[in-house]
Amino acid sequence: MNLAITDVRLTPILVADPPLLNTQGVHQPYTPRLIVEVVTADGVTGVGETYGDTKYLELARPFAERLKGRQVSDLNGLFTVADQVAVDASRVENAVDVGGLRGVQTADKLRLSVVSGFEVACLDALGKALGLPVHALLGGKVRDAVEYSAYLFYKWAGHPEGVACEKDDWGAAVDPAGVVEQARRFTERYGFTSFKLKGGVFPPDEEIAAVRALAEAFPGHPLRLDPNGAWSLQTSLKVARELGDVLEYLEDPTLGTPAMAEVAERTGVPLATNMCVTTFAEIKEAFTRGAVQVVLSDHHYWGGPRNTQQLAAVCRTFGVGVSMHSNTHLGISLAAMTHVAATVPDLHHACDSHYPWQSEDVLTERLTFEGGRVTVPDAPGLGVELDRERLAVLHRRWLDDDGGLRDRDDAAAMRVADPEWVTPSMPRW
Amino acid sequence: MNLAITDVRLTPILVADPPLLNTQGVHQPYTPRLIVEVVTADGVTGVGETYGDTKYLELARPFAERLKGRQVSDLNGLFTVADQVAVDASRVENAVDVGGLRGVQTADKLRLSVVSGFEVACLDALGKALGLPVHALLGGKVRDAVEYSAYLFYKWAGHPEGVACEKDDWGAAVDPAGVVEQARRFTERYGFTSFKLKGGVFPPDEEIAAVRALAEAFPGHPLRLDPNGAWSLQTSLKVARELGDVLEYLEDPTLGTPAMAEVAERTGVPLATNMCVTTFAEIKEAFTRGAVQVVLSDHHYWGGPRNTQQLAAVCRTFGVGVSMHSNTHLGISLAAMTHVAATVPDLHHACDSHYPWQSEDVLTERLTFEGGRVTVPDAPGLGVELDRERLAVLHRRWLDDDGGLRDRDDAAAMRVADPEWVTPSMPRW
Repeated sequence: MNLAITDVRLTPILVADPPLLNTQGVHQPYTPRLIVEVVTADGVTGVGETYGDTKYLELARPFAERLKGRQVSDLNGLFTVADQVAVDASRVENAVDVGGLRGVQTADKLRLSVVSGFEVACLDALGKALGLPVHALLGGKVRDAVEYSAYLFYKWAGHPEGVACEKDDWGAAVDPAGVVEQARRFTERYGFTSFKLKGGVFPPDEEIAAVRALAEAFPGHPLRLDPNGAWSLQTSLKVARELGDVLEYLEDPTLGTPAMAEVAERTGVPLATNMCVTTFAEIKEAFTRGAVQVVLSDHHYWGGPRNTQQLAAVCRTFGVGVSMHSNTHLGISLAAMTHVAATVPDLHHACDSHYPWQSEDVLTERLTFEGGRVTVPDAPGLGVELDRERLAVLHRRWLDDDGGLRDRDDAAAMRVADPEWVTPSMPRW
Repeated sequence: MNLAITDVRLTPILVADPPLLNTQGVHQPYTPRLIVEVVTADGVTGVGETYGDTKYLELARPFAERLKGRQVSDLNGLFTVADQVAVDASRVENAVDVGGLRGVQTADKLRLSVVSGFEVACLDALGKALGLPVHALLGGKVRDAVEYSAYLFYKWAGHPEGVACEKDDWGAAVDPAGVVEQARRFTERYGFTSFKLKGGVFPPDEEIAAVRALAEAFPGHPLRLDPNGAWSLQTSLKVARELGDVLEYLEDPTLGTPAMAEVAERTGVPLATNMCVTTFAEIKEAFTRGAVQVVLSDHHYWGGPRNTQQLAAVCRTFGVGVSMHSNTHLGISLAAMTHVAATVPDLHHACDSHYPWQSEDVLTERLTFEGGRVTVPDAPGLGVELDRERLAVLHRRWLDDDGGLRDRDDAAAMRVADPEWVTPSMPRW
C-alpha cells in the first residue's frame, strides 16, 4: 500500500443557488465552490470541497503543490503546510466579502478553510485505501444517522432579471405565511422537525411574527432565528424576551462577544453562533464571559473534521453545546459533516445544512434526508462518488464566467433588483 | 479484513520498582500493572497497559467481556462501554490509595484509566491490521523523536529488609550531592537535558538546596520540582520566590485550584500539574482562574491517546501549555506516550517518564533514549513486541503474591523501615 500523494486536482465550479435573502442582500444565481481531489500512488482518489472564492483558490494552488509526495495519512502535516503558504493579508483584511456572514476574517481562518478541503479529500482517500469509512478514521460513529434542521430562508420566487439561471420550485417566502409554507414543504420532503429561519432581512417585528407563526404551526418543535448579527443590543434583548418561550436558541442576534454576553445574561435565552466564535482564538473570551451557549461548527472554517472534533471537546469541557453549521455546499461537504457529526458524542442539536437548496451537485448520487436525518455512510471513505461529467459542466460555467460570480457578493446580487442597495451597516436594527 | 474483536486477555503483573521516595512514603519493591491484549478475527493482537491495582482490575474484567464482537476501530465506542460498566463508588471514594499522588479520585477517572489500556491495545491492533503506525492513526507525527526529562528521585540504596526484590545500581540520593550525581548519571546514560526532581520528601529548604545544586551543575537547563502538593500556600510562595529564577516550572506545590491560582498570580512562576487538573471537569475553573500554566497529561488518567490530543487542544485554546506525565510504567505505555506526543504540535516541554527506573519490561526489546529522546516508531501499531515468557514470569509473581503488593501503597512500604510512619496529612510543610 503506497499512500504517497502523487497528484492533486483543484476544480473551481459555479453551482446554482436560489435567491435566498439575508441581511447583506440576496444569494447570486451561482455560487463558487472548490472541489479538491488527491490521488495516491496506488491510484486511489479522495475528494474534498471548500469555499471557492478567489482568495481561497489563490491559497489552495500553492498548497496543492506542496502536498505532492506527502502521505495521505499525514493529516497533522496539513496544518504545517498551511503555515508555509503565504496569505496576501491585504486581500483578507480589505476585500469586500461576505465576511459579514462568516464571522471574523483572518489569514489563519482562510488557511483553515483551505486545509479543510484537503483534509476531507485525504480522509476520503485514506478510507478508500484502507477499506474504512471516514467515521472510523475519526474514532468511529456513535450514531447511525445525523439529524439536520430545516434551514428556512426568506426568498424571492426567482432571481432578478438579467441573469440566466436554474429555476427552483420553492416559490417566494417574504412573510409569516410564506415561511410556514416553506417549513411545511421541508417537512414533507425531508422529514425535518427542527426549523431555523435566516433572519436579519425584515424589521424584527416581522421576523418575530414569522417565528410565532412557526411555533403555532409546529408546536413544541425546536425553532431558531439567525439574523447574522443585524440587531443592536437593545433590539436583541427585545427579540430574545419576546421569543424566549419558543426558541431552542437565538443565533448571533448581535455582533461581538460583549453584546452577546449581555444578551445571554440578561435574557437567559441560549445563544448560538457561527459568527462570534469561528476560530479557536475567540473561544477563551467568549466562554469565560458566557457569551455563547452553542457553537455551530462550520468544518470549513474550523479546519476540517478533526478540528471540529477538537472544538467539540473544548465545548464539552466548558459546558457549551456544539452543533454544525454550513454555508452553501454540496454533497461532499454534507458527507464530511455527517461523518464527523456521527462521532461527536454530545451532539444535542440538529445540524444546519443548506443542502436542500442546492439543486446541483457533483455526485453520481445525492445524499438524502429521511426523517430529517442523513444515514452515516459505511462504505469506504466518505461513501460518495464524484460525477466527472457534472463536475466538468460546472467547471465550464466557472471558466465561462467573466469573474462577476467568482467571488460571492450578496450585495451585488441585490443591486440587480435595487440599484440603490448598499451593504447595511451593523447594527441594521 | 475483519476487525472484530474475538478475544481480550488481561494479565495483571508485578514489576520491580526501586525504593523511590515521595511525600507519601516510598515505592514498594514491586508495583502492579495490567497488560491488555485484544485479538481480532484475523488473529491480529494489540497490546495496551494501564494501572494494575485491584480496583482497576475489577473494572477491566467486565469491560473486556463487553468488547468481544465490537470493531477494533470503534474507539469512540470504548467510552460508551465504559459508561455501561458499574464502578463500586465506595471503593473509589474510600479506598486507601495513592490518590494523594494521582489527583482527585472519581469513578469516571477510574473508568478512563481502564479505557486507556484498551484504547492503546485497539490502536496497536488497528495499526497492525492496516500496516500503519499508531501515530498515523492519530493524524500523523509532527516530529520524529519525542524529548523526555530525567525524572530524579530521592531514593534509598535498597528496599528495607524483609522483601526480596531486584537490585538497582543507582545507589542512594538523599541530599543535593546525591541528586546531582543521579542527574549526571541520567545524562550520561540517556542524554536527558531537562531535570525534574520529585520533592515533598525533605523539608523545603533541603529541596531548594538540591535544585540550586542542579542549577549550578547544569546551568541553563530546564529544571522542575514536584512536591506533590505537600506544601502550604505560604511555603509554596516562599519556594516559588526562592527558585523562580532557575525553574522551568514548579509542579503541584500545593493542593487545590484556589491555592495554585494564588501562587501563580503572586509569584509569576509557571505552575504545572498532574494533580490539580487531572480530569476535563477540573479544567474550567482552573483555567479561568489561571491556576495552572502547564497540564501534564497522564494518558491513562485522561482516557487514552485521543483524549490526550483533545486535552492538548483545550490547553492550546486557552493558552495553557501541555506536556506528559507518567507514573511507574513499562514500554507499552512509553510507546503510547511517544506516539501521541509526536502528534501534538505545541509540545514545548520535555515529557516525564519513569521508564528508566523500570529494570523489567514485557517487551522483547526495550525502548531506548538517545539524546534524551525516544525515536517515534514507524512500524505498524505501537512498534513494540510482547515477550510472552517475560509476561508469564511477571504474572506468576502477581499470582504468588499474598495480596500485599497488589495495591500500590507507598505508606505501607515506608512502615517496613519506620513502623511509626503514617501517611502525612497535607500540607506537610
